[in-house]
Amino acid sequence: MESNTASSDEQSYQVRKLEITDKNKGFMELLQQLTVCDPVTDEEFQERFEELKSYGDDHVICVIEDMNLSKIVATGSVFVEKKFIRNCGKVGHIEDVVVDSSARGMQQGKKVVGFLADHARLTDCYKVIFDCSDDYKAFYEKCGFKQKEIQMV
Amino acid sequence: MESNTASSDEQSYQVRKLEITDKNKGFMELLQQLTVCDPVTDEEFQERFEELKSYGDDHVICVIEDMNLSKIVATGSVFVEKKFIRNCGKVGHIEDVVVDSSARGMQQGKKVVGFLADHARLTDCYKVIFDCSDDYKAFYEKCGFKQKEIQMV
Repeated sequence: MESNTASSDEQSYQVRKLEITDKNKGFMELLQQLTVCDPVTDEEFQERFEELKSYGDDHVICVIEDMNLSKIVATGSVFVEKKFIRNCGKVGHIEDVVVDSSARGMQQGKKVVGFLADHARLTDCYKVIFDCSDDYKAFYEKCGFKQKEIQMV
Repeated sequence: MESNTASSDEQSYQVRKLEITDKNKGFMELLQQLTVCDPVTDEEFQERFEELKSYGDDHVICVIEDMNLSKIVATGSVFVEKKFIRNCGKVGHIEDVVVDSSARGMQQGKKVVGFLADHARLTDCYKVIFDCSDDYKAFYEKCGFKQKEIQMV
Protein backbone atom coordinates (compact mmCIF):
# COMPACT_ATOMS: atom_id res chain seq x y z
CA MET A 1 0.00 0.00 0.00
CA GLU A 2 2.71 2.44 1.02
CA SER A 3 4.43 2.20 -2.34
CA ASN A 4 1.66 4.35 -3.83
CA THR A 5 2.63 7.25 -1.64
CA ALA A 6 5.91 8.98 -1.07
CA SER A 7 7.85 7.24 1.64
CA SER A 8 10.47 9.80 2.65
CA ASP A 9 9.77 12.19 5.50
CA GLU A 10 9.88 15.16 3.11
CA GLN A 11 7.29 13.74 0.76
CA SER A 12 4.84 12.19 3.20
CA TYR A 13 4.26 15.32 5.22
CA GLN A 14 3.09 18.67 3.95
CA VAL A 15 3.77 21.84 5.94
CA ARG A 16 1.27 24.56 5.03
CA LYS A 17 -1.32 27.05 6.29
CA LEU A 18 -4.60 25.85 7.80
CA GLU A 19 -7.39 25.19 5.31
CA ILE A 20 -11.07 25.07 6.14
CA THR A 21 -11.28 21.38 5.21
CA ASP A 22 -8.75 20.54 7.93
CA LYS A 23 -11.60 20.25 10.41
CA ASN A 24 -12.34 16.92 8.70
CA LYS A 25 -8.69 15.88 8.98
CA GLY A 26 -8.57 15.81 12.77
CA PHE A 27 -7.47 19.42 13.41
CA MET A 28 -9.74 19.90 16.42
CA GLU A 29 -8.91 16.45 17.83
CA LEU A 30 -5.23 17.39 17.62
CA LEU A 31 -5.86 20.57 19.61
CA GLN A 32 -7.51 18.42 22.27
CA GLN A 33 -4.06 17.00 22.98
CA LEU A 34 -3.00 20.52 23.96
CA THR A 35 -5.81 21.69 26.20
CA VAL A 36 -9.56 21.80 26.69
CA CYS A 37 -11.05 21.87 23.22
CA ASP A 38 -14.68 20.88 23.02
CA PRO A 39 -16.10 19.91 19.64
CA VAL A 40 -17.44 22.87 17.65
CA THR A 41 -20.01 22.86 14.88
CA ASP A 42 -19.03 23.33 11.25
CA GLU A 43 -20.63 26.79 11.41
CA GLU A 44 -18.64 27.81 14.50
CA PHE A 45 -15.45 26.53 12.89
CA GLN A 46 -16.13 28.39 9.66
CA GLU A 47 -16.93 31.62 11.48
CA ARG A 48 -13.67 31.56 13.46
CA PHE A 49 -11.74 30.48 10.34
CA GLU A 50 -13.10 33.46 8.37
CA GLU A 51 -12.44 35.88 11.26
CA LEU A 52 -8.81 34.79 11.42
CA LYS A 53 -8.46 34.82 7.64
CA SER A 54 -9.58 38.45 7.61
CA TYR A 55 -6.41 39.33 9.53
CA GLY A 56 -4.34 38.24 6.52
CA ASP A 57 -0.65 37.97 7.37
CA ASP A 58 -1.35 39.20 10.90
CA HIS A 59 -2.61 35.77 11.94
CA VAL A 60 -1.40 32.50 10.47
CA ILE A 61 -2.01 28.91 11.55
CA CYS A 62 0.48 26.32 10.36
CA VAL A 63 -0.42 22.64 10.03
CA ILE A 64 1.47 19.54 9.01
CA GLU A 65 -0.57 16.94 7.16
CA ASP A 66 0.35 13.28 7.01
CA MET A 67 -0.45 12.81 3.32
CA ASN A 68 -0.77 9.04 3.64
CA LEU A 69 -3.47 9.33 6.28
CA SER A 70 -4.97 12.72 5.26
CA LYS A 71 -4.51 13.63 8.91
CA ILE A 72 -3.25 16.80 10.59
CA VAL A 73 -0.42 15.73 12.90
CA ALA A 74 1.02 19.06 14.04
CA THR A 75 -0.05 22.67 14.32
CA GLY A 76 0.83 26.05 15.77
CA SER A 77 -0.21 29.65 15.27
CA VAL A 78 1.42 33.06 15.11
CA PHE A 79 -0.15 36.48 15.37
CA VAL A 80 1.57 39.72 14.58
CA GLU A 81 1.10 42.45 17.17
CA LYS A 82 1.56 46.02 15.96
CA LYS A 83 3.10 48.44 18.43
CA PHE A 84 4.16 52.07 18.69
CA ILE A 85 7.44 51.21 20.39
CA ARG A 86 10.54 50.26 18.39
CA ASN A 87 9.69 52.68 15.61
CA CYS A 88 6.14 51.35 15.19
CA GLY A 89 7.52 47.82 15.29
CA LYS A 90 5.83 44.44 15.18
CA VAL A 91 6.14 41.37 17.43
CA GLY A 92 5.24 37.82 16.44
CA HIS A 93 3.52 35.73 19.12
CA ILE A 94 3.70 31.96 18.67
CA GLU A 95 0.86 30.06 20.35
CA ASP A 96 -0.77 26.66 20.63
CA VAL A 97 1.96 24.42 19.21
CA VAL A 98 1.06 20.73 19.43
CA VAL A 99 2.24 17.53 17.76
CA ASP A 100 0.09 14.41 17.55
CA SER A 101 1.18 11.74 20.02
CA SER A 102 1.74 9.32 17.10
CA ALA A 103 4.10 11.73 15.32
CA ARG A 104 6.39 12.88 18.12
CA GLY A 105 10.17 12.54 17.89
CA MET A 106 10.12 13.42 14.18
CA GLN A 107 10.97 17.12 14.45
CA GLN A 108 7.43 18.06 13.45
CA GLY A 109 7.18 20.63 16.25
CA LYS A 110 10.45 22.18 15.17
CA LYS A 111 9.13 22.45 11.60
CA VAL A 112 5.96 24.17 12.81
CA VAL A 113 7.89 26.67 14.93
CA GLY A 114 10.30 27.27 12.03
CA PHE A 115 7.40 27.96 9.65
CA LEU A 116 5.81 30.41 12.10
CA ALA A 117 9.07 32.17 12.98
CA ASP A 118 9.88 32.53 9.27
CA HIS A 119 6.47 34.10 8.72
CA ALA A 120 7.08 36.56 11.57
CA ARG A 121 10.46 37.51 10.14
CA LEU A 122 9.03 37.96 6.64
CA THR A 123 6.41 40.33 8.03
CA ASP A 124 9.20 42.40 9.61
CA CYS A 125 8.70 41.46 13.26
CA TYR A 126 11.64 42.69 15.32
CA LYS A 127 11.05 39.89 17.83
CA VAL A 128 9.32 36.51 17.98
CA ILE A 129 8.11 35.26 21.34
CA PHE A 130 5.99 32.51 22.78
CA ASP A 131 4.69 31.50 26.11
CA CYS A 132 5.00 27.98 27.37
CA SER A 133 5.00 25.98 30.56
CA ASP A 134 8.32 24.87 32.04
CA ASP A 135 7.62 21.39 30.61
CA TYR A 136 8.20 22.64 27.07
CA LYS A 137 11.20 24.82 27.79
CA ALA A 138 13.65 22.19 26.55
CA PHE A 139 11.74 21.82 23.30
CA TYR A 140 11.78 25.54 22.54
CA GLU A 141 15.46 25.77 23.41
CA LYS A 142 16.04 23.09 20.79
CA CYS A 143 14.26 25.40 18.34
CA GLY A 144 16.75 28.14 19.17
CA PHE A 145 14.69 30.21 21.61
CA LYS A 146 15.87 31.56 24.95
CA GLN A 147 13.88 32.28 28.11
CA LYS A 148 13.28 35.99 28.48
CA GLU A 149 10.31 36.92 30.58
CA ILE A 150 7.67 35.35 32.73
CA GLN A 151 3.98 35.35 32.08
CA MET A 152 1.34 36.33 34.61
CA VAL A 153 -2.30 35.21 34.42
CA MET B 1 -3.94 78.28 39.49
CA GLU B 2 -4.85 74.80 40.64
CA SER B 3 -8.22 75.94 41.95
CA ASN B 4 -9.48 76.10 38.36
CA THR B 5 -9.00 72.38 37.95
CA ALA B 6 -10.17 69.48 40.01
CA SER B 7 -7.72 68.72 42.74
CA SER B 8 -8.70 65.21 43.83
CA ASP B 9 -7.02 62.19 42.27
CA GLU B 10 -10.29 61.11 40.64
CA GLN B 11 -10.86 64.42 38.90
CA SER B 12 -7.34 65.37 37.84
CA TYR B 13 -6.70 62.18 35.90
CA GLN B 14 -8.75 60.77 33.06
CA VAL B 15 -8.57 57.07 32.19
CA ARG B 16 -9.62 56.48 28.58
CA LYS B 17 -8.69 54.99 25.21
CA LEU B 18 -5.82 56.43 23.16
CA GLU B 19 -6.74 59.32 20.89
CA ILE B 20 -4.75 60.47 17.89
CA THR B 21 -3.99 63.83 19.52
CA ASP B 22 -2.18 62.05 22.37
CA LYS B 23 0.99 62.14 20.28
CA ASN B 24 1.11 65.84 21.22
CA LYS B 25 0.58 65.01 24.88
CA GLY B 26 3.79 63.06 25.37
CA PHE B 27 2.52 59.58 24.52
CA MET B 28 5.66 58.55 22.62
CA GLU B 29 7.96 60.12 25.21
CA LEU B 30 6.18 58.04 27.86
CA LEU B 31 6.81 54.85 25.87
CA GLN B 32 10.50 55.77 25.81
CA GLN B 33 10.52 55.11 29.54
CA LEU B 34 9.57 51.51 28.74
CA THR B 35 11.95 50.58 25.94
CA VAL B 36 13.58 51.75 22.72
CA CYS B 37 11.10 54.10 21.10
CA ASP B 38 12.53 56.41 18.51
CA PRO B 39 10.50 59.44 17.48
CA VAL B 40 8.06 58.76 14.64
CA THR B 41 6.55 61.24 12.21
CA ASP B 42 2.93 62.34 12.47
CA GLU B 43 2.23 60.28 9.33
CA GLU B 44 3.77 57.12 10.80
CA PHE B 45 1.87 57.65 14.03
CA GLN B 46 -1.41 58.17 12.20
CA GLU B 47 -0.89 55.11 10.01
CA ARG B 48 -0.27 52.84 13.01
CA PHE B 49 -3.13 54.46 14.92
CA GLU B 50 -5.55 53.77 12.05
CA GLU B 51 -4.29 50.21 11.65
CA LEU B 52 -4.92 49.49 15.31
CA LYS B 53 -8.27 51.26 15.25
CA SER B 54 -9.39 48.99 12.42
CA TYR B 55 -9.15 46.06 14.86
CA GLY B 56 -11.97 47.61 16.91
CA ASP B 57 -12.38 45.88 20.26
CA ASP B 58 -9.62 43.41 19.37
CA HIS B 59 -6.93 45.99 20.14
CA VAL B 60 -7.28 48.73 22.72
CA ILE B 61 -4.70 51.14 24.14
CA CYS B 62 -5.50 52.72 27.49
CA VAL B 63 -4.01 56.04 28.58
CA ILE B 64 -4.26 58.16 31.70
CA GLU B 65 -4.11 61.90 31.11
CA ASP B 66 -3.07 64.38 33.77
CA MET B 67 -5.75 66.96 32.99
CA ASN B 68 -3.85 69.78 34.67
CA LEU B 69 -0.82 69.29 32.46
CA SER B 70 -2.55 67.83 29.35
CA LYS B 71 0.03 65.09 29.60
CA ILE B 72 -0.24 61.30 29.21
CA VAL B 73 1.23 59.80 32.39
CA ALA B 74 0.37 56.11 32.02
CA THR B 75 -0.48 53.66 29.27
CA GLY B 76 -0.91 50.00 28.43
CA SER B 77 -2.44 47.93 25.62
CA VAL B 78 -4.48 44.78 25.26
CA PHE B 79 -5.12 42.70 22.19
CA VAL B 80 -7.68 39.96 21.94
CA GLU B 81 -6.41 36.75 20.37
CA LYS B 82 -9.02 34.48 18.80
CA LYS B 83 -8.41 30.77 19.10
CA PHE B 84 -9.98 27.46 18.14
CA ILE B 85 -9.29 25.91 21.54
CA ARG B 86 -11.64 26.41 24.50
CA ASN B 87 -14.69 26.33 22.28
CA CYS B 88 -13.35 28.98 19.89
CA GLY B 89 -12.30 31.06 22.90
CA LYS B 90 -10.47 34.35 23.19
CA VAL B 91 -7.43 35.40 25.24
CA GLY B 92 -6.54 38.96 26.21
CA HIS B 93 -2.84 39.86 26.06
CA ILE B 94 -1.77 42.88 28.10
CA GLU B 95 1.37 44.59 26.80
CA ASP B 96 3.53 47.68 27.20
CA VAL B 97 2.31 49.01 30.54
CA VAL B 98 4.29 52.05 31.69
CA VAL B 99 3.76 54.86 34.19
CA ASP B 100 5.56 58.21 33.92
CA SER B 101 8.38 58.51 36.46
CA SER B 102 6.68 61.61 37.90
CA ALA B 103 3.41 59.77 38.52
CA ARG B 104 4.55 56.54 40.15
CA GLY B 105 3.25 55.41 43.52
CA MET B 106 -0.26 56.67 42.70
CA GLN B 107 -1.82 53.39 41.53
CA GLN B 108 -1.86 54.62 37.93
CA GLY B 109 -0.43 51.32 36.66
CA LYS B 110 -3.07 49.40 38.55
CA LYS B 111 -5.78 51.56 36.96
CA VAL B 112 -4.38 50.90 33.48
CA VAL B 113 -4.23 47.14 34.04
CA GLY B 114 -7.74 47.21 35.52
CA PHE B 115 -9.08 49.08 32.47
CA LEU B 116 -7.45 46.59 30.09
CA ALA B 117 -8.49 43.50 32.06
CA ASP B 118 -12.08 44.81 32.22
CA HIS B 119 -12.03 45.27 28.45
CA ALA B 120 -10.80 41.69 27.98
CA ARG B 121 -13.52 40.35 30.24
CA LEU B 122 -16.21 42.38 28.46
CA THR B 123 -15.11 40.92 25.13
CA ASP B 124 -15.52 37.41 26.60
CA CYS B 125 -11.88 36.46 26.99
CA TYR B 126 -11.60 33.28 29.06
CA LYS B 127 -8.13 34.35 30.23
CA VAL B 128 -6.06 37.54 30.49
CA ILE B 129 -2.29 37.24 30.43
CA PHE B 130 0.73 39.42 30.16
CA ASP B 131 4.43 39.00 29.88
CA CYS B 132 6.81 40.88 32.07
CA SER B 133 10.32 40.74 33.40
CA ASP B 134 10.92 39.49 36.93
CA ASP B 135 11.32 43.13 38.01
CA TYR B 136 7.62 43.78 37.50
CA LYS B 137 6.34 40.55 39.02
CA ALA B 138 5.52 42.20 42.35
CA PHE B 139 3.53 44.94 40.59
CA TYR B 140 1.39 42.50 38.65
CA GLU B 141 0.82 40.38 41.73
CA LYS B 142 -0.55 43.53 43.37
CA CYS B 143 -2.96 43.76 40.44
CA GLY B 144 -4.19 40.26 41.23
CA PHE B 145 -2.25 38.25 38.64
CA LYS B 146 -0.35 35.02 39.26
CA GLN B 147 2.72 33.65 37.49
CA LYS B 148 1.75 30.90 35.09
CA GLU B 149 4.14 30.31 32.28
CA ILE B 150 7.50 31.47 31.04
CA GLN B 151 8.19 33.28 27.83
CA MET B 152 10.83 32.29 25.29
CA VAL B 153 12.33 34.70 22.76
